[in-house]
Amino acid sequence: MFASYAFPGTQVSVTHLDYGPASVESEFDEAICIPDFLHKAQQAEAEGYDAVISNCFGDPGVKPARELLSIPVVGAAESSMHFAATLGQRFSVVTALPNSVPMIENLAVQYGLDRKLASIRSVNIPVLQLGDKDRLTSALQQEMIAAIREDHAHVLVLGCTGMRGVAKQLEQRLKREGYEVPVVDPTAAALKFAEALVSIGLKQSRITAMPPPEKPRTESPLFATKRT
Amino acid sequence: MFASYAFPGTQVSVTHLDYGPASVESEFDEAICIPDFLHKAQQAEAEGYDAVISNCFGDPGVKPARELLSIPVVGAAESSMHFAATLGQRFSVVTALPNSVPMIENLAVQYGLDRKLASIRSVNIPVLQLGDKDRLTSALQQEMIAAIREDHAHVLVLGCTGMRGVAKQLEQRLKREGYEVPVVDPTAAALKFAEALVSIGLKQSRITAMPPPEKPRTESPLFATKRT
Amino acid sequence: MFASYAFPGTQVSVTHLDYGPASVESEFDEAICIPDFLHKAQQAEAEGYDAVISNCFGDPGVKPARELLSIPVVGAAESSMHFAATLGQRFSVVTALPNSVPMIENLAVQYGLDRKLASIRSVNIPVLQLGDKDRLTSALQQEMIAAIREDHAHVLVLGCTGMRGVAKQLEQRLKREGYEVPVVDPTAAALKFAEALVSIGLKQSRITAMPPPEKPRTESPLFATKRT
Amino acid sequence: MFASYAFPGTQVSVTHLDYGPASVESEFDEAICIPDFLHKAQQAEAEGYDAVISNCFGDPGVKPARELLSIPVVGAAESSMHFAATLGQRFSVVTALPNSVPMIENLAVQYGLDRKLASIRSVNIPVLQLGDKDRLTSALQQEMIAAIREDHAHVLVLGCTGMRGVAKQLEQRLKREGYEVPVVDPTAAALKFAEALVSIGLKQSRITAMPPPEKPRTESPLFATKRT
Amino acid sequence: MFASYAFPGTQVSVTHLDYGPASVESEFDEAICIPDFLHKAQQAEAEGYDAVISNCFGDPGVKPARELLSIPVVGAAESSMHFAATLGQRFSVVTALPNSVPMIENLAVQYGLDRKLASIRSVNIPVLQLGDKDRLTSALQQEMIAAIREDHAHVLVLGCTGMRGVAKQLEQRLKREGYEVPVVDPTAAALKFAEALVSIGLKQSRITAMPPPEKPRTESPLFATKRT
Amino acid sequence: MFASYAFPGTQVSVTHLDYGPASVESEFDEAICIPDFLHKAQQAEAEGYDAVISNCFGDPGVKPARELLSIPVVGAAESSMHFAATLGQRFSVVTALPNSVPMIENLAVQYGLDRKLASIRSVNIPVLQLGDKDRLTSALQQEMIAAIREDHAHVLVLGCTGMRGVAKQLEQRLKREGYEVPVVDPTAAALKFAEALVSIGLKQSRITAMPPPEKPRTESPLFATKRT
Repeated sequence: MFASYAFPGTQVSVTHLDYGPASVESEFDEAICIPDFLHKAQQAEAEGYDAVISNCFGDPGVKPARELLSIPVVGAAESSMHFAATLGQRFSVVTALPNSVPMIENLAVQYGLDRKLASIRSVNIPVLQLGDKDRLTSALQQEMIAAIREDHAHVLVLGCTGMRGVAKQLEQRLKREGYEVPVVDPTAAALKFAEALVSIGLKQSRITAMPPPEKPRTESPLFATKRT
Repeated sequence: MFASYAFPGTQVSVTHLDYGPASVESEFDEAICIPDFLHKAQQAEAEGYDAVISNCFGDPGVKPARELLSIPVVGAAESSMHFAATLGQRFSVVTALPNSVPMIENLAVQYGLDRKLASIRSVNIPVLQLGDKDRLTSALQQEMIAAIREDHAHVLVLGCTGMRGVAKQLEQRLKREGYEVPVVDPTAAALKFAEALVSIGLKQSRITAMPPPEKPRTESPLFATKRT
Repeated sequence: MFASYAFPGTQVSVTHLDYGPASVESEFDEAICIPDFLHKAQQAEAEGYDAVISNCFGDPGVKPARELLSIPVVGAAESSMHFAATLGQRFSVVTALPNSVPMIENLAVQYGLDRKLASIRSVNIPVLQLGDKDRLTSALQQEMIAAIREDHAHVLVLGCTGMRGVAKQLEQRLKREGYEVPVVDPTAAALKFAEALVSIGLKQSRITAMPPPEKPRTESPLFATKRT
Repeated sequence: MFASYAFPGTQVSVTHLDYGPASVESEFDEAICIPDFLHKAQQAEAEGYDAVISNCFGDPGVKPARELLSIPVVGAAESSMHFAATLGQRFSVVTALPNSVPMIENLAVQYGLDRKLASIRSVNIPVLQLGDKDRLTSALQQEMIAAIREDHAHVLVLGCTGMRGVAKQLEQRLKREGYEVPVVDPTAAALKFAEALVSIGLKQSRITAMPPPEKPRTESPLFATKRT
Repeated sequence: MFASYAFPGTQVSVTHLDYGPASVESEFDEAICIPDFLHKAQQAEAEGYDAVISNCFGDPGVKPARELLSIPVVGAAESSMHFAATLGQRFSVVTALPNSVPMIENLAVQYGLDRKLASIRSVNIPVLQLGDKDRLTSALQQEMIAAIREDHAHVLVLGCTGMRGVAKQLEQRLKREGYEVPVVDPTAAALKFAEALVSIGLKQSRITAMPPPEKPRTESPLFATKRT
Repeated sequence: MFASYAFPGTQVSVTHLDYGPASVESEFDEAICIPDFLHKAQQAEAEGYDAVISNCFGDPGVKPARELLSIPVVGAAESSMHFAATLGQRFSVVTALPNSVPMIENLAVQYGLDRKLASIRSVNIPVLQLGDKDRLTSALQQEMIAAIREDHAHVLVLGCTGMRGVAKQLEQRLKREGYEVPVVDPTAAALKFAEALVSIGLKQSRITAMPPPEKPRTESPLFATKRT
């Protein structure tokens, strides 16, 4: 699916974590997926990739990876929130489970975008059940209409990268209801951000993301065996 | 120069205004350049272009053009500020004349990015004299270092689209001074934003940018003769 | 009507634009009315007026006029929002069409008053139909009560200078409903602001509103023929 | 002095407190001057005055007086901060003693104007010694220039109503230094606010300033003997 | 009741004011209770107490007392809002009468906690009638559920120190409704804050709370007779 | 050292991580210390402890632990920032290395305390070298004085839990320089917060910190072997 969004000339590789939760929908899930993400991110840089995307709406591991790598590291939430912020007065995010709502709020405030955030809603469907597209699309439509009517959202953001391939259909459904509003797909947004940064040679500031100091690290078995 | 930044397959046309100031560096300049910009933007849509860029750091005409057009309208300031916001804790903008500083501050606050803005500085060189690259680059370097040291900027943004072709050189100069920070070129940022929006099919929300109501408009001669 | 609000000794002249839209209710309308407003503002200063009011709730042309003139320039939205902010915890604005809502939000945030703004609502009546006072007053009453009950407004502001002569009647109607709240008329507020500034000799800071630099301006026919 | 600022037709009476500190320059001073101010404010309303001004830059007693009275109650700080906010991007307040700085900051944040506040500085002269105009004006000039250069103030506010009759002279001195900026006199600003509110029939919202509930009040001797 | 909350070794004395209102539920009540509170606070310090609590949710007298005393002065609202802010994304306060709502909002914004404040609601019961625990608890439960459902509160704060001994029962009632949320009792919170500050030797900064300057104070009879 | 701060009756156990970095001074360090912290936190709850403290100024693992545990989880940064916010207008944090500054800024903004934060400074000493108390105290004193003079801090916070036993000495040194300001020790602050919450029976809201959903977790070796 990534490939279908890419500009000509962009090569995308998708890797899954060896260790971590089956899906990310809590602070706990984030915490235990980050170590292996960092490992995979370092591998990607070593293999010559130009950028790394943390393709999860919690942006897990983006900040530490920016310290470790010398290529741009892009988060799906950060990219889609910034695109959304330019498309209208306020955006709402609709995510999978209510568990993730505070996490996403904390991202918005860290990204300095809380004034542009109308609300965060959830369809109350676990990530692993998002494959049922009919159920997902109906639930998203309902929450998005509520976001527009009750929370004054002008732009919508899919708040989980597992909500694949539904953005355009939702735009059409909302238009039929009288709301001609953009629906931002976070996977697509992250890819575009990464392509843009690589294209114009930008990456994270080294004053924000200083390389971690050298020192003894009694690391976990995972790190001890897999990192170089 | 636009072409050198573009992804393969992107065709860029640059048009200058028939009416307006020789450069834009005050609210007055903005006010008198917008009518013709809107005319040109409508022409571009009629000719089949996929997006329109207002390539000036005041983003003149972006909001009314979003009402008038059905294709994405992108501003150089908005695009570069959003990219900059993702690259570090805070960014500073360095513009040409002090006259533009309040205007750019007002943009940052409207875009919801004031908490990410470290400062706005100027090199105090009129736009029409920015062609002297040596003078420009030295002045920019000096203000950028002050922005880092005194205003705690972690990312720099060139605050005038007339500051062409100096971003990479400034990154190198700043690195030599010990600051490995990104310098965002607004023209490049706007092009990337436009390409990204077109690529994933996003455009302005019609709840924010409603089409102007039909009604008698005793327009200025400019509009009376040129718009359809 | 202006005269009825004025302090003894104040002389008010009202001028209409030669070029521009029949009413201002979109960013596009603002853009095309500003050039002639600037022309008229300069004329007023040349004729010896002490202050200029942009009597439209979008405050069109206020910022560039402050650069061009040496007398105070006052906006109807800015004046009424500041009065409203002192009269209670939060104010709501009720404007004519939903098209203007984002524009007014952007003004509030630029004026630094967003934390005092409860909401912006509209009666969904085009400016040119505001003459039907019964329809207007009923619609305003309904939205104002909603603003108090749902948006926690403590003060109300008429969000269009075309809503003339209804403020006091609305105060009485709201009082009958149990809400003893002020309703700010923007025309009156702007006049009082202008009279106050002239009376105590205050005008715009020249650090914010620097005079536009001299330079070639290939202006539109409108400007070419009318400005000196 | 009040009379010299007043519009024709405005009658101003100035009353001093019978109980309270010799000057107000701490939270403690405010606390002990408010009871008698409330008494005097009630007397003024009973005598038929149209508005009451708390002519001290801490705005002592303004909020409780708004609950007790049915005529507008105006504070010197609130009025001058709101005028200042419209005259430029940011204002600085220069007050008498550093003791009052946090108090004034708390006012600015309550009035929703903290984003417009550049800084609060003090000349470090007790209120009772402000009569030495030469010393005062020189000290104010110095702090105002520092506010412009270091804190990016575009507008200045005299932060004590004891700083009488120096605003215009300071504007001239600052202009000679190259800064054409307004200096707001809080006494004048409060009078203009009061005149404006009375002129257009506005007063405090009764949702914000509800009348205090009836109940037994074992009041202090002061109140027991003097209030009706 | 204080004693039941105290750590072993803490001795708590409760004093009532000799002068002031029977309860505090308006700005006016606050204004007239502060002078005697300051007197009592100074007595407490003279008698060797380690800290003073202003046990009212308006925190009356906290700021001037901090200037006068050299021991920590703690407010019930400030303490409970800060505890609440750490327990979840946002808290709502439920107070006695609507009169106090703006007062509490002003505290939240002064304490820098407005972004953590979901809402302030009231049960519309005068403080002197809070003794009817059944009525109080039912009314609180209803408003707290509304705060959770409509205002997105995650934490609740009792907004009046007269709401004694109901926090734990409300936590249980809310849990039965499906909401496992903390309910903060302001008296308990203030005591814990005071004990903590004394235990680790912290008190108010003397840059914020400078001692009031020496000067003539023609004080009210109350002060004249009772303070040393 | 914890014991010396504790109230009578409080029993404190300190555990070190088996896996993780030798010190925490980067986002990377945080990421790799959290998994084992969560393990230890779960053990502590199983062993009957009443609260868990993450005694590091980055508050690593606090959010996921709040999801996993049913006892209060307290962070050293969150506790000390909230105490500091009540002691004066603004606080500055002085941490060990500049690497941690953005991390701490992100915490302040998430905790809703950014308006109370004057600045974050660092002594530029690695955590593992903080044992040299003379060097540490001198460096802290210097940065704290700069924070007061240049950043307008009124309260100081030690921004690393490795800065042990120096708070009181710094208060004395600053007092000698003319600044009577509190210096908050984060370890002490966290202990007091934990004791307070346990004492009055408060813990994290389950709307903010929902228990992580049950699902397959292919966890890292560390988790696979050590968690029950």
